[in-house]
Amino acid sequence: MKASLAVLIAGGAQIEIEPIDIGERVYKSGHSAGITPDAWDSLRRTKVFYKAPITTPQGGGFKSLNVTIRKSLGLFANVRPCVAYAPFVKTDHPGMDVVIVRENEEDLYAGIEHRQTDEVYQCLKLVSRPGCEKIVRYAFDYARAYGRQKVTCFVKDNIMKLTDGLFRKVFDEVAAEYPDIEADHAIIDIGAARLAAKPERFDVIVTPNLYGDIVSDIAAEVAGSVGLGASANIGAQCAMFEAIHGSAPDIAGQDVANPSGLLMAGVMMLVHLGQTEAAERIHNAWLCALEDGVGTPDIAAEDAAVGTQQFAREVIARLGQRPKTLAPVSYEPDARPIEVWTPQPKPKALKRLVGIDVFVHSNEEPDALAGRLQACLNPLTELKMITNRGVKVWPDPMPETFCTDHWRCRIEAKPEKALNKAMLVEILRNMVLDGVDFVKTEHLYEFDGERGYSLGQGQ
Amino acid sequence: MKASLAVLIAGGAQIEIEPIDIGERVYKSGHSAGITPDAWDSLRRTKVFYKAPITTPQGGGFKSLNVTIRKSLGLFANVRPCVAYAPFVKTDHPGMDVVIVRENEEDLYAGIEHRQTDEVYQCLKLVSRPGCEKIVRYAFDYARAYGRQKVTCFVKDNIMKLTDGLFRKVFDEVAAEYPDIEADHAIIDIGAARLAAKPERFDVIVTPNLYGDIVSDIAAEVAGSVGLGASANIGAQCAMFEAIHGSAPDIAGQDVANPSGLLMAGVMMLVHLGQTEAAERIHNAWLCALEDGVGTPDIAAEDAAVGTQQFAREVIARLGQRPKTLAPVSYEPDARPIEVWTPQPKPKALKRLVGIDVFVHSNEEPDALAGRLQACLNPLTELKMITNRGVKVWPDPMPETFCTDHWRCRIEAKPEKALNKAMLVEILRNMVLDGVDFVKTEHLYEFDGERGYSLGQGQ
Repeated sequence: MKASLAVLIAGGAQIEIEPIDIGERVYKSGHSAGITPDAWDSLRRTKVFYKAPITTPQGGGFKSLNVTIRKSLGLFANVRPCVAYAPFVKTDHPGMDVVIVRENEEDLYAGIEHRQTDEVYQCLKLVSRPGCEKIVRYAFDYARAYGRQKVTCFVKDNIMKLTDGLFRKVFDEVAAEYPDIEADHAIIDIGAARLAAKPERFDVIVTPNLYGDIVSDIAAEVAGSVGLGASANIGAQCAMFEAIHGSAPDIAGQDVANPSGLLMAGVMMLVHLGQTEAAERIHNAWLCALEDGVGTPDIAAEDAAVGTQQFAREVIARLGQRPKTLAPVSYEPDARPIEVWTPQPKPKALKRLVGIDVFVHSNEEPDALAGRLQACLNPLTELKMITNRGVKVWPDPMPETFCTDHWRCRIEAKPEKALNKAMLVEILRNMVLDGVDFVKTEHLYEFDGERGYSLGQGQ
Repeated sequence: MKASLAVLIAGGAQIEIEPIDIGERVYKSGHSAGITPDAWDSLRRTKVFYKAPITTPQGGGFKSLNVTIRKSLGLFANVRPCVAYAPFVKTDHPGMDVVIVRENEEDLYAGIEHRQTDEVYQCLKLVSRPGCEKIVRYAFDYARAYGRQKVTCFVKDNIMKLTDGLFRKVFDEVAAEYPDIEADHAIIDIGAARLAAKPERFDVIVTPNLYGDIVSDIAAEVAGSVGLGASANIGAQCAMFEAIHGSAPDIAGQDVANPSGLLMAGVMMLVHLGQTEAAERIHNAWLCALEDGVGTPDIAAEDAAVGTQQFAREVIARLGQRPKTLAPVSYEPDARPIEVWTPQPKPKALKRLVGIDVFVHSNEEPDALAGRLQACLNPLTELKMITNRGVKVWPDPMPETFCTDHWRCRIEAKPEKALNKAMLVEILRNMVLDGVDFVKTEHLYEFDGERGYSLGQGQ
């Protein structure tokens, strides 16, 4: 951190520094989240967090501080530029210059999991319209602010038609408002494969949390620059800037670590703060150092390698120079921080309850289970199907279907009949009396007349 | 298909062929699944399906036939070898020889989705113990049968501790039964990145459905051999073998398509049937053809390219030869098909109900919502927390947390108090009376004294 700050200040950054102590020492002093209330106050006041790599102690119930900070401060966008620096840093993809914009709060990473039966475990993938809209708008605003040509959306909407379908739909809606930026999409599997093999094809990629986690690591790895990479975590109120590599406790404090990741995070921070002149000067000086073969032991030839502090001095010595082989960087002189879009309240849809999926823990055969469930219904409702792991097993099962002890039983209102929650609760009460071991429910709704749930396979 | 079958038969395959018609023509004749009852009968009788690429017509509610067949016949394992054929097929990774064993039935691909509120959509990720055990055992059995050294497990169990944690736990248990095979694991993001950049490090990879979808495409792409790749879909009763490329309707029937993918699928089928001698002869003859620069227009130089049927004749002409540059293939002469493990019933755990997560659609502030919920409880229960997208918002919210209209409200039995389902139903009934718009529930259980649900962030 010392080395990076020295370069930032020498480069003309106008920053006041308020140091806070987080991580291992704080964990061990009894703050199980690794951060003190004073440190939270400081972050809230300063709104910009320039973070050194930290260590979450293994075991002992310590929570990941990165996740805590991201979630608590609402840092919804993870922005990771992945750039090749060939021939100075080895890569198969010299022309690569991709920015991954990853949604950072939703998706499976909400971590809501339930063991449901002896055999079956569940995790919820949750996606919200404002969450999709915030990240997609940020990606397009980023593309505009940084002079990028194209934004590509990666989802799996051919399988997850509602959740990933929502992300894709929001992407298409927002893209229409940015006619100056090309919009493109790929199914995540094919997209990830193309990114791995031909990353030069991509510019900005926007994608939900889990996919973003995977593709941002792929992009950094094939660029060859994991050790030099930085990322920004952007929220409506606060932002955090950090290197993408870990804390490497084995070499910490020995003056051998490469400060480039943290320095590039500092450059992202300066751009975020609108200090683009200093950012450009420092970024170009750093590229000059790379070109001149200046590097810490991780990237430089053994006899040419320098220490962390010396590397910083070498960058400082090149302030004002521009690279000759690598493309010089330029940032708009009057750039203003990207304004984070604030979700607008939308009119509420007309919601109609049309049924319920009841999930049952049972070792019975589907026919027997169906009979018991039917006895619990009221005359307005009917059992439509039972599935096991998404495959229909009642009525008309396939003999080859392997069944677990976890059954999804879909109960719907009969045609033309109206349903209400009181009836559903009554049906559940009957199930309790009849010893049906239900473990979860999902209501089935129509929103403005449109079905809000997927059909069963074969339904 | 004609070309591939000609090679298989010339190579000594002992097969009786029972052709079935599936796909576009069948869809259009009125079978919305693209397959007739007679065809199902044939598949059940013959148990082995050698499938040409087919087209699912766009729109019109046609279901993907691949998904239908996979799910209906319980084809739980997707096996995809990804091999580099340098220098005859261009690749950055000449030494690559990876097999992806992908779980094929579970995970998010069960496709169970529910729109829950105006803003929030959900997909269920479901993972079962027997499902994990089947695929992991298949991967280790495969490694043994094919003389492979190492199986690597890709999951994200640092985030999804219950679901991916189960997969990882089963992997570790099963691995201990195969001391002759090295067991290894990687977090999916880092694993995918390494696979993209240094695939030579991997041997067999076993992974859940979604990750498998992504990494099998990455592996095929970086091997450079998507057009030559094949995959097997294995079930307890049936198996299906196919090329990994699509149906390419624009070139079908013009004698220019590369039959290699389908031919290699045929070789996989022969090995599966125990006809390893024929498989070895055909596989090596095909490698010889590659070495000799024989190829259809997609891989050969323009003036050297041959048609589909001629390519087949060239392979047949080389039957009995072994490649000189590429490594010759050998299959155990007395190999028997891998026996699919049958899940064994396990003792049921002692399950104890300790609470319920009630998910509420509301535009209220968390404090107001908490007050209303508390009024619905009985004296044995208490409201422990409310989260929004997994972030705790009651008690002690962070001011920066962005909230959607979807609240997860955790109700638990007070210490030392016993809970039953009748009480939960009573609480839900109170919510109905009080106008609390709950849209789903998840019961909280302990299994043999172990917590069967994740804690909320900050809980």
